[in-house]
Amino acid sequence: MELVVYLAGQIHDDWRDKLRQMAKERNLPLIFKGPQEDHDLSDDIGERIKGKQPNAVYRDQAASEVNNLRTRIWMQKADVVIALFGEKYRQWNTAMDAAMAIAAQKPLILIRPESLHHPLKELSQRAQLVVETPEQALDALAYVLE
Amino acid sequence: MELVVYLAGQIHDDWRDKLRQMAKERNLPLIFKGPQEDHDLSDDIGERIKGKQPNAVYRDQAASEVNNLRTRIWMQKADVVIALFGEKYRQWNTAMDAAMAIAAQKPLILIRPESLHHPLKELSQRAQLVVETPEQALDALAYVLE
Amino acid sequence: MELVVYLAGQIHDDWRDKLRQMAKERNLPLIFKGPQEDHDLSDDIGERIKGKQPNAVYRDQAASEVNNLRTRIWMQKADVVIALFGEKYRQWNTAMDAAMAIAAQKPLILIRPESLHHPLKELSQRAQLVVETPEQALDALAYVLE
Amino acid sequence: MELVVYLAGQIHDDWRDKLRQMAKERNLPLIFKGPQEDHDLSDDIGERIKGKQPNAVYRDQAASEVNNLRTRIWMQKADVVIALFGEKYRQWNTAMDAAMAIAAQKPLILIRPESLHHPLKELSQRAQLVVETPEQALDALAYVLE
Amino acid sequence: MELVVYLAGQIHDDWRDKLRQMAKERNLPLIFKGPQEDHDLSDDIGERIKGKQPNAVYRDQAASEVNNLRTRIWMQKADVVIALFGEKYRQWNTAMDAAMAIAAQKPLILIRPESLHHPLKELSQRAQLVVETPEQALDALAYVLE
Amino acid sequence: MELVVYLAGQIHDDWRDKLRQMAKERNLPLIFKGPQEDHDLSDDIGERIKGKQPNAVYRDQAASEVNNLRTRIWMQKADVVIALFGEKYRQWNTAMDAAMAIAAQKPLILIRPESLHHPLKELSQRAQLVVETPEQALDALAYVLE
Amino acid sequence: MELVVYLAGQIHDDWRDKLRQMAKERNLPLIFKGPQEDHDLSDDIGERIKGKQPNAVYRDQAASEVNNLRTRIWMQKADVVIALFGEKYRQWNTAMDAAMAIAAQKPLILIRPESLHHPLKELSQRAQLVVETPEQALDALAYVLE
Amino acid sequence: MELVVYLAGQIHDDWRDKLRQMAKERNLPLIFKGPQEDHDLSDDIGERIKGKQPNAVYRDQAASEVNNLRTRIWMQKADVVIALFGEKYRQWNTAMDAAMAIAAQKPLILIRPESLHHPLKELSQRAQLVVETPEQALDALAYVLE
Repeated sequence: MELVVYLAGQIHDDWRDKLRQMAKERNLPLIFKGPQEDHDLSDDIGERIKGKQPNAVYRDQAASEVNNLRTRIWMQKADVVIALFGEKYRQWNTAMDAAMAIAAQKPLILIRPESLHHPLKELSQRAQLVVETPEQALDALAYVLE
Repeated sequence: MELVVYLAGQIHDDWRDKLRQMAKERNLPLIFKGPQEDHDLSDDIGERIKGKQPNAVYRDQAASEVNNLRTRIWMQKADVVIALFGEKYRQWNTAMDAAMAIAAQKPLILIRPESLHHPLKELSQRAQLVVETPEQALDALAYVLE
Repeated sequence: MELVVYLAGQIHDDWRDKLRQMAKERNLPLIFKGPQEDHDLSDDIGERIKGKQPNAVYRDQAASEVNNLRTRIWMQKADVVIALFGEKYRQWNTAMDAAMAIAAQKPLILIRPESLHHPLKELSQRAQLVVETPEQALDALAYVLE
Repeated sequence: MELVVYLAGQIHDDWRDKLRQMAKERNLPLIFKGPQEDHDLSDDIGERIKGKQPNAVYRDQAASEVNNLRTRIWMQKADVVIALFGEKYRQWNTAMDAAMAIAAQKPLILIRPESLHHPLKELSQRAQLVVETPEQALDALAYVLE
Repeated sequence: MELVVYLAGQIHDDWRDKLRQMAKERNLPLIFKGPQEDHDLSDDIGERIKGKQPNAVYRDQAASEVNNLRTRIWMQKADVVIALFGEKYRQWNTAMDAAMAIAAQKPLILIRPESLHHPLKELSQRAQLVVETPEQALDALAYVLE
Repeated sequence: MELVVYLAGQIHDDWRDKLRQMAKERNLPLIFKGPQEDHDLSDDIGERIKGKQPNAVYRDQAASEVNNLRTRIWMQKADVVIALFGEKYRQWNTAMDAAMAIAAQKPLILIRPESLHHPLKELSQRAQLVVETPEQALDALAYVLE
Repeated sequence: MELVVYLAGQIHDDWRDKLRQMAKERNLPLIFKGPQEDHDLSDDIGERIKGKQPNAVYRDQAASEVNNLRTRIWMQKADVVIALFGEKYRQWNTAMDAAMAIAAQKPLILIRPESLHHPLKELSQRAQLVVETPEQALDALAYVLE
Repeated sequence: MELVVYLAGQIHDDWRDKLRQMAKERNLPLIFKGPQEDHDLSDDIGERIKGKQPNAVYRDQAASEVNNLRTRIWMQKADVVIALFGEKYRQWNTAMDAAMAIAAQKPLILIRPESLHHPLKELSQRAQLVVETPEQALDALAYVLE
């Protein structure tokens, strides 16, 4: 039985590619979904579809209409959600996705470096599992699939 | 008819006091609930109740057990949630509370300086109302209560 | 036991006042809630609170942020929803409120002149009760309260 | 992974055909569902199945029993809902479908000419995405599927 | 703390009066709600409010619009539901109310003479408590309130 | 896309066989599920699995444990529920299944001879569609699948 | 604002009395509800209300019908659930109440001696807060109410 | 149509293997899911993935994070849940899984030796079916699939 995994988190490096590669090597029946990983496209998509907006706030709103559409469609199909936090960026959208998973009673795996334990303490306490690396998250999913 | 308002957000300045004061001056039938506002107590409460924990991560977990207990009890009684974001701090717990409100279909008022529009764009797009100051949030609630 | 009644529908005449008056005369324990009935204020409230918007579309969006905040807060407290349709106006927001009540499993009383039966046939078929005048709606609530 | 898209809105022109055609040309894995598009059949179906009704109101009710059956079955299978509004017709059933999607937490794409922004402001503000043409709606779904 | 009890079942004798009387004598903090107990009024209420209908089927439909309005409003306020079945009458509406309570996860007390155990076996098996007399139902509520 | 249809109602004649046959002849992509149609087996299944029970009430309870298990498993997989009522039998379990479908927001098609309109008026008013024969129910499903 | 607290757990000693007493001394606005604390009555209540049952299994079933009625009524009114486990007894009903609270998204405080950490590890991991004494549970509620 | 069955209960003997074997021999279209059956691995998995924990309580917490991840993923996919209790062990996690199934309205089959009827009376009373052996549970599922 395949599981659908939503990969929430920053889109500034290739952590999702590595995770997908690892899953493939281990032959895990996982289907990964997530946000648009091309950062410029992600910021620009609202104006590409809806046309030029009056200012930066509305440009961001237009982009979020489309990006949230994507997130909501795949999140509702996910069996489990992985949310990765890193030192850089504010990642409030990652926190939003993580909390949405908790509220929808979807199991959440939180990945964060130990150094972030303090600002992430409330989210961590309500996650199903907290780990430090994507590899550990995959170990857990492999265990579920055994 | 009184409304219960949960005030999510940082606990490093007295924005809640000011909001409560303004509501009182305007005679608005609002009952405010929110997190523990004594920051040291908030960080320490886990160990005060459960005793010394083995390290800083578990100290944070113990505190979050109690703080999340508080947040969950009052959030589920809230008719509307206000979440305030500022320049300082990561405020992932504020993003969590805001997202929980959205997921529970409770109307969310998001307060943030315009300078934060980009990192908050996804949350803003799903909030019921986005304003820049607590006073504007109160104006909106006054309008609801008219 | 008091019942909370949400009064959805156009705000261009005083049908709500008349309904409130009739309920008072009959001593019915009903608490009425509804949208802002001052039409100019309703259209202007977004810019009053959030400031001038770049164009008419965004002015409308700002107003709707505040008006929908009001509607959502009172709708979730309502025990029963009355939605009134008339010949004038498009009243898509009334249809939205009516459908939201159905979806939330709150009993819906639909008021419409018989002349509107064709365009309202889908909503009528899913309403709990369809009548032609506010007085009939009140008769039904009086019967519930007997 | 295929997505099921419910196409709410008027059935007086061939906008759904065009949308289906465009999706096919772009090889998008979308399954479209929607109301009966044969307008006369849609109005007549109640009496065809249940027999002659006593008057026009009951004829409409009978038709809506069957049409709402169809709408509810496909709406509950939909991953995303598109609702199109045009200048003509009252389209209260479209507003109903759109609001049902919002209430069921299904992402809603609202299509409307900019000229309708005022009467549609409340629905627009709660839609996930607002665009002006079916092509833009498809652009957004293509982006989700990338 | 008071409990709201919905009394589903036939309206052809005075079992509700007796139950209310017994509860009063025992000083139990119970608020009883239920259907219209005046049988003729119950059958006639649709036409009284909506006017003469074209035939007996539509007369019944009109009455049920109003009676179901009443049932739904009070059922959703009930903490516990009592459903009484007797030898006479088909009582499909009682079975409907009982099943609605089960589906809404409201505790159901089923009252029936033992002679009806066979036709009521499926409902009985999913009720929270099955007894034979209203007095036993009240004994159980008294125990809950101790 | 196939639809799963649950067929609630009496098991004393072969109406389900006829319906399945008609669906087959019309090539409708419908999967039918329903209760055990062998009446003796249905009454006896509790004791066959759990052993002899102390009396007829407990024999019925044991049978209902197993029969309700079956009903619940298939009802939760159903896209639409058909409930058939006839002149004979009390059919409280059919009313229960019908009400469960309504409460779970699954579209319900109610089949009953017109002669039963009075005792079934409350259920009929909340069904999605009321018809008099299984053939009409199938006509409606064929229309949905067009 | 008062909070309703359900006290799940064994009824073989007076831990609830002590908790109530402590809450009173600290003037905490808590309303406590819980199971019947008279153990013999709790075991006997089924037969007292329903009459003699054929054997010990059915005697237990009858008692549980009434005791579960009580538990369900108060659990659904509770804002927070406390579940206490001790060394003695199997306490599967306590585990049931605790899990029901988790599933209903009601915050759960689990009280257990540290010696039980291994058999309670799964429940503990999903509780909102785990402590070792009733006094600690009350400290947490006092903190919530500050 | 295949059914997914979650097998909750102790992992100290091979009852799941026997059940799977019996289902295979009878050609039942059942997909079984359940917890990790290697007991040492189940206790150790937390530290294997997350690394050495500070003490036995946190070691157990880490293991439960991963084991509960597994349980939650498969439980939410299950059509029916079987929970087996035996004389040995406290099995509070089995009671948790059983109660979660009840709360999520998933049909629960409870297997227990008759000797355990007293401590399991509350859970039994809310299960859909109570039997004494895995074979009886399979008989019931075979009946469902007929």
